[in-house]
Amino acid sequence: MKLTVFGSNGRVGGSVVRLAEKKGHEVTKIDVGDNITKFNADVVIDFSVPQATEAVIDYCVACNCPLVTGVTGRNAEQQFEIDKLSERLPVVQSANFSEGIALFTDVCAKIAAAHPEWDVDVVEMHRRGKLDAPSGTAKTIAAKISQAKGAFGKVTIHSVRSGTNFGVHSVIFGGTGENITLTHRAENVEVFALGAIKQAEVLFTKRTE
Amino acid sequence: MKLTVFGSNGRVGGSVVRLAEKKGHEVTKIDVGDNITKFNADVVIDFSVPQATEAVIDYCVACNCPLVTGVTGRNAEQQFEIDKLSERLPVVQSANFSEGIALFTDVCAKIAAAHPEWDVDVVEMHRRGKLDAPSGTAKTIAAKISQAKGAFGKVTIHSVRSGTNFGVHSVIFGGTGENITLTHRAENVEVFALGAIKQAEVLFTKRTE
Amino acid sequence: MKLTVFGSNGRVGGSVVRLAEKKGHEVTKIDVGDNITKFNADVVIDFSVPQATEAVIDYCVACNCPLVTGVTGRNAEQQFEIDKLSERLPVVQSANFSEGIALFTDVCAKIAAAHPEWDVDVVEMHRRGKLDAPSGTAKTIAAKISQAKGAFGKVTIHSVRSGTNFGVHSVIFGGTGENITLTHRAENVEVFALGAIKQAEVLFTKRTE
Amino acid sequence: MKLTVFGSNGRVGGSVVRLAEKKGHEVTKIDVGDNITKFNADVVIDFSVPQATEAVIDYCVACNCPLVTGVTGRNAEQQFEIDKLSERLPVVQSANFSEGIALFTDVCAKIAAAHPEWDVDVVEMHRRGKLDAPSGTAKTIAAKISQAKGAFGKVTIHSVRSGTNFGVHSVIFGGTGENITLTHRAENVEVFALGAIKQAEVLFTKRTE
Repeated sequence: MKLTVFGSNGRVGGSVVRLAEKKGHEVTKIDVGDNITKFNADVVIDFSVPQATEAVIDYCVACNCPLVTGVTGRNAEQQFEIDKLSERLPVVQSANFSEGIALFTDVCAKIAAAHPEWDVDVVEMHRRGKLDAPSGTAKTIAAKISQAKGAFGKVTIHSVRSGTNFGVHSVIFGGTGENITLTHRAENVEVFALGAIKQAEVLFTKRTE
Repeated sequence: MKLTVFGSNGRVGGSVVRLAEKKGHEVTKIDVGDNITKFNADVVIDFSVPQATEAVIDYCVACNCPLVTGVTGRNAEQQFEIDKLSERLPVVQSANFSEGIALFTDVCAKIAAAHPEWDVDVVEMHRRGKLDAPSGTAKTIAAKISQAKGAFGKVTIHSVRSGTNFGVHSVIFGGTGENITLTHRAENVEVFALGAIKQAEVLFTKRTE
Repeated sequence: MKLTVFGSNGRVGGSVVRLAEKKGHEVTKIDVGDNITKFNADVVIDFSVPQATEAVIDYCVACNCPLVTGVTGRNAEQQFEIDKLSERLPVVQSANFSEGIALFTDVCAKIAAAHPEWDVDVVEMHRRGKLDAPSGTAKTIAAKISQAKGAFGKVTIHSVRSGTNFGVHSVIFGGTGENITLTHRAENVEVFALGAIKQAEVLFTKRTE
Repeated sequence: MKLTVFGSNGRVGGSVVRLAEKKGHEVTKIDVGDNITKFNADVVIDFSVPQATEAVIDYCVACNCPLVTGVTGRNAEQQFEIDKLSERLPVVQSANFSEGIALFTDVCAKIAAAHPEWDVDVVEMHRRGKLDAPSGTAKTIAAKISQAKGAFGKVTIHSVRSGTNFGVHSVIFGGTGENITLTHRAENVEVFALGAIKQAEVLFTKRTE
């Protein structure tokens, strides 16, 4: 599969490049400042920045290929453009491509639905340098829980920026005389890269079937 | 409602007595060494010890009343007697009457079913003096998870006996590049007592409907 | 010992009354709205509110007795009055009378002094109804750590208000490739009440020696 | 500096090779099955296995160079040989070369010394494949705490083998009405490799001063 990776010098993007090449995919790397002259991909994987949204979309349109994007922090206009693209081409967008996080979010919502009267707090921890807070993943988790709680929907997010950890999301449910805490920990950056490559492979297989 | 509490001097049993009286129930207290002469109850709540199983059963039969029992550590024979009783009279038996623990166990099983290949460990912590280990609750959680994992069914239980805590159950799921931990904490003994009284009230209401 | 307890209807104050009476002390209870006519105490224990500061001080002066106060959230003026009192009479003031919290704070400061370059966050969790945030204890911990870190002194506090827990303080140290978390959990309200009574007993013994 | 790495194909050993080369050191790699013909090193770093102890010692003696060894699980005889070597040449031996673990152990011992009556449990978690249990680090921590507790010296170790984590050590102190938990997490294997290289650099500098 021919993969083009936007944000190829970044933490996750760089990991996508290494792992995709190891899996035998043909990888084109694009990062900020690069002059894009060749448009040739089966799938685009995007771990760049919100500002690159237009360039990413143009590239997908030019190649007529699907997009897998893990960029968080897009503004309303940028998100609108992604949504519009998704009407023309397959787009998978996620704040977190680890295998476990969707399941984690599901079970949190299940608890919230069973006990909407319990208090809910999300504590997310990421490495010192991470710019956006709260994390996109924390916002997704909180939104799903809030929806499950219905009228009791308040969820508070607390953001810790510390050291070099790979991303921790804790959800605290406070009941009467008891509490439940769920914690998801990413142990490396590969878990996100592999998840994104897997999505790209699924999209590629669907198209070529 | 006329309640008879076996183990009325114990930690949870004593709490049942106090809270049931506060709720206006008429409570008869029975503990080790007591000579039982009066048999008169709408429901029996039992937080005594396995050795009292026969006396508890005789009492229920004499009163023709339901049983709510939170005793753990019964041997096969004692458990068999409880099962036999349940064919004649309503019996609710649980290792843990807190509101959240059943839900907690459910979501653990859900995660295990989705990822049977993940490793699972249960770490349970109870107060220094607790005699049986692992806790009945930990055994229930492990059994439900093991069932959900199917062929991959191994679950390891670790028992910590420490200080004066009210019971902590952690379930650790170890995946590839990520892990999920769920922790349930009881904050006091009332959470178990209230749960048992609630069950007794439900049984009483059903019978008198 | 003759004890007067301000805030005798509160969570901790009420516990002080019960435990002090059980220990054989003679207890006078005072809470909001009470008309104080009798001034007679060997020691005053105060778990009331900042607004009662003047009344508490007047009482101590009238009895010429020491003060043990666990009230947090006093404004600068109220704190100034307490400081002034401490020049005339023994005053023990603490945000947290549990035995372990001072030790906990010490070891946190020790870690911070050894690695001032590590990031530090304090996450404190208290019951839903607690009015002041951050907790007085969290502020004390953060101040001690900040001092130990010197020029790198930033410490961020996150406050969770949830359910019915008795107070949890976590300190997260984020290094390079490793992190350390310390967590102190109070398991009941008695741990604070007993600590305050112990302080009162020490002050009483000192005075009567 | 000329470094010879025993266990160069292992998890930590391989990381030592990569990071030492990146730092400009000249690295000789040795792993099981290699025929050692050249003896030339300023320092030896050893993350091999207990069975290689004799070969490692012979190599150090032949080069007359210091040894940094992170191998755990040596039997009494193998350990005796290491101790004998340390009388002739500088030897640094540690179960855990992360920067924080020594400090972590120190503060645990400090807490234990202040409250020898508190219960202490060590819960250590390592990746699924780790052969020895408890971990060498857990044994070191438990021994230091036990010594600090004196007559109350019991410490229980619980070993979890799960997933792909890089090593977690939790120490639980159970008091009366309160508990304290300390957790050290390694976030990658480099933290151990870098610590060992740092020790090698210190030994090299000392010798050449």
